[in-house]
Amino acid sequence: MKEVKIERALTYIEPGPVTLVTSFDGVRNNVMTISWTMAIDFDGHIVITTGGWNHSFSVIMETGECVVCIPPAEMAETVVDIGMVSGADIDKFSVFPVTALPAKTVKAPLIAECIACLECKVTDYIDDYGFIVLKVQRVVVNENAADKRMLHAVGDGTFVADGEKFNLRERMKAKLPPNL
Amino acid sequence: MKEVKIERALTYIEPGPVTLVTSFDGVRNNVMTISWTMAIDFDGHIVITTGGWNHSFSVIMETGECVVCIPPAEMAETVVDIGMVSGADIDKFSVFPVTALPAKTVKAPLIAECIACLECKVTDYIDDYGFIVLKVQRVVVNENAADKRMLHAVGDGTFVADGEKFNLRERMKAKLPPNL
Repeated sequence: MKEVKIERALTYIEPGPVTLVTSFDGVRNNVMTISWTMAIDFDGHIVITTGGWNHSFSVIMETGECVVCIPPAEMAETVVDIGMVSGADIDKFSVFPVTALPAKTVKAPLIAECIACLECKVTDYIDDYGFIVLKVQRVVVNENAADKRMLHAVGDGTFVADGEKFNLRERMKAKLPPNL
Repeated sequence: MKEVKIERALTYIEPGPVTLVTSFDGVRNNVMTISWTMAIDFDGHIVITTGGWNHSFSVIMETGECVVCIPPAEMAETVVDIGMVSGADIDKFSVFPVTALPAKTVKAPLIAECIACLECKVTDYIDDYGFIVLKVQRVVVNENAADKRMLHAVGDGTFVADGEKFNLRERMKAKLPPNL
């Protein structure tokens, strides 16, 4: 995993991929699947929507941190399987093919198999909607990932991988965020 | 455009596409490009992030409604061009290749060239973050769209179209929302 500048965090969330969000409760690592996420500024703030029904939720709120990881499309089955069980019942890192690596700014782990991981601290919580507002502290990318296609959850049990790319940087140069 | 059940709204937002959001100020239709969106429940609520710098913002807040449309990947250049200018200066529906069609539950228009359009009413606004919470009132889809690939904004001036599809409905059947 290689550290890249924090402004790149946006480019891993804005495209709308399904994510694997890790946490650490002081004893065990945990991970949940979340696809309700949103970029909200150019300063590294993002939002994830979840709630008390998720075992990870209380850990993230208590520790004030998590890592938002972006799995490649080839991990689709693992992403679903992780979302089907609770970390209250099993140790997901020992059951599923995900490898925890140490983060630098938080105690929650990176996931070695992911395209990128965003180390995050909780800055706010909007209870009415279950919005956890996060500030990205550090961005690491996996330059050796064999599959760099993000995976998008359709919401009905189907998923779509990234396909054709379009470079329209020249066309929107005047509105691109600085440093990107 | 064909109406489909409201539960399908989720499947057009959760994958994280860039959207074209229309509004009507009483005189003129307008449209803005928004990619900071999020599904937030299974009941048709979604969020878009914007703010006072957008001409459309005040119209949406005053009228309490808008239409969130999903453009196909082949509209990438138009999507960028719409985002580069303000509706305060020009009539975007007369300048760009987008065709307004009447919606049923709101005065803001559908866009004929889009894959799907979600007619929405504003139910809340979270000023700290510019979150406009919307309740989808009606979902219409364009069954004749030649290109049904969604377009995802990476945030750095590049875009990615939907590619390979994965059907994992059997694997996650126990957690699929009803009616999907």
